[in-house]
Amino acid sequence: MPDFQFAAVDWGTSSFRLWRLAGDGTVLGESRSHEGMIVARENGFADILARHLDAVGASDDLPVLICGMAGAKQGWVEAGYVDVPARLDTISGQAVRLEGVARDIRILPGLAQRDPQAADVMRGEETQLLGCIDHMPGGHAMVAMPGTHSKWVRVEAHRVTRFSTFMTGELFDAISKHTILSHALAASEGFGGDSAVFAAAVRQAFASPATMTSQLFSIRARGLLFSLTAAEAEATLSGLMIGIELAGALGAAPGDNTIILVASGKLAELYRAAFAALGLDCTTIDADQAVRAGLGLAAAAIWNPKQRIPTA
Amino acid sequence: MPDFQFAAVDWGTSSFRLWRLAGDGTVLGESRSHEGMIVARENGFADILARHLDAVGASDDLPVLICGMAGAKQGWVEAGYVDVPARLDTISGQAVRLEGVARDIRILPGLAQRDPQAADVMRGEETQLLGCIDHMPGGHAMVAMPGTHSKWVRVEAHRVTRFSTFMTGELFDAISKHTILSHALAASEGFGGDSAVFAAAVRQAFASPATMTSQLFSIRARGLLFSLTAAEAEATLSGLMIGIELAGALGAAPGDNTIILVASGKLAELYRAAFAALGLDCTTIDADQAVRAGLGLAAAAIWNPKQRIPTA
Repeated sequence: MPDFQFAAVDWGTSSFRLWRLAGDGTVLGESRSHEGMIVARENGFADILARHLDAVGASDDLPVLICGMAGAKQGWVEAGYVDVPARLDTISGQAVRLEGVARDIRILPGLAQRDPQAADVMRGEETQLLGCIDHMPGGHAMVAMPGTHSKWVRVEAHRVTRFSTFMTGELFDAISKHTILSHALAASEGFGGDSAVFAAAVRQAFASPATMTSQLFSIRARGLLFSLTAAEAEATLSGLMIGIELAGALGAAPGDNTIILVASGKLAELYRAAFAALGLDCTTIDADQAVRAGLGLAAAAIWNPKQRIPTA
Repeated sequence: MPDFQFAAVDWGTSSFRLWRLAGDGTVLGESRSHEGMIVARENGFADILARHLDAVGASDDLPVLICGMAGAKQGWVEAGYVDVPARLDTISGQAVRLEGVARDIRILPGLAQRDPQAADVMRGEETQLLGCIDHMPGGHAMVAMPGTHSKWVRVEAHRVTRFSTFMTGELFDAISKHTILSHALAASEGFGGDSAVFAAAVRQAFASPATMTSQLFSIRARGLLFSLTAAEAEATLSGLMIGIELAGALGAAPGDNTIILVASGKLAELYRAAFAALGLDCTTIDADQAVRAGLGLAAAAIWNPKQRIPTA
């Protein structure tokens, strides 16, 4: 399908990203904005998509494949969930096609873990996972997708067997803005992700996750007793939040995992510094690249069934 | 000193409580308001105290003993800290007397733990601890003082040897108002502290503190996948926050501790239910009673040195 093209869309809660892609993955156009699901619920999903398609010069019959929150219950059209354990190459088969429109627009489902003791859901990250498939030797990996809600996914023989969502980014935000620590962090202009203070906090939370909420108060006390600076306070809070995430995700034998880190920019640097603080290695895959690759594989499976996903 | 009287004041961040007490602890008058340190910094500490003294019919020469945030750096007069390890009966000797006023007004110091790995401070709770001294066989106890910032204090031979502050109440508040869980909890009108859902969450966080921030997201996922009610979501969040506190405070051998719970009302019920979920016992002491008793012992030591604190 050398001439095949489609529009790949990652429609998150607060961001929208569209690429016009050739069948071989070449990016022919890109359009992004902050018109995520929250904005789209107000302004209309169809209008926002149409405008971004125009922006990349899409023809009227260019098919569109969407992943992310557009498929949530409160999104555009509910695309449901594929239950884990789930083969990564089966997700595209569950895409939901929009009715009543001429253009072929499909939304990929999310993944659900229906275990009452560890209930979990994802939307969008399953597509990033699919996009990492070439980097999983034997189809095995522990994949970390950090962010507002960090996802950690265990992939075995190309099947997602288990995943957990850690509220790291959102908790960092809520704690730094809406607790007593807001005073300690107020003057901070950020910190280098590789700071020794950050690394020490990662190690402390990793070694003693049970005392997490006490280590948080200690930031305040160190401000009173040891003149901790605002930048050090931010580095400590950041390190503690990521440290407990790593403790929960990696368990007692962290070195047994081959970690794939799906992230970009500063977030990728921060997590690499956290892994380094624990003596762990990882392979980094750019988050944008992963979602584009995943949408590309899913699109090929949907519109060119002869081209099978490599894992099938 | 049968005719000795004084005004006992617990001046917190957001609350003010004053009692006119006889030497034997009898309450002769009480006045309370929300004029804590935050309000007092605006409206003036002296005026607020004078009004409450009037309200209980205090004579011009009634001495006043204050504990709590009035002694903080940003309070009325800084009363500093006594460093741990500290004998409980030495705290009153470090009280700071207000200068330039006719009335004898003194503010008790807080406690500081100057360990960079576990820096911590308290103001007010040291006085509650002193008030619990009769309930510590041999002067040994593990004392829990739950709240916005829960304090857990190890007392050995009447000495505070170690303490930790857990941001349980404040984190519950920030998470329930300022994260995605706010939607899950919005419709809740509270839950019975003895609910099975609460107990299960306490046990889960206690058993697996490292996965805490993932268990939090699971509340959201259980709402999507298992129709968790708002009351169940609140019970779960509450149980998780208290469960990780107990894991951090009690460690691997929780049954080895004789726990004194200093709390009142619903908070006391909630923590008793949490202890029960883990098969632990505790002795409950009313928080108001504890601070009055502590102020009474300290006042006797200050103004009637012949009457020594029982531990001395």
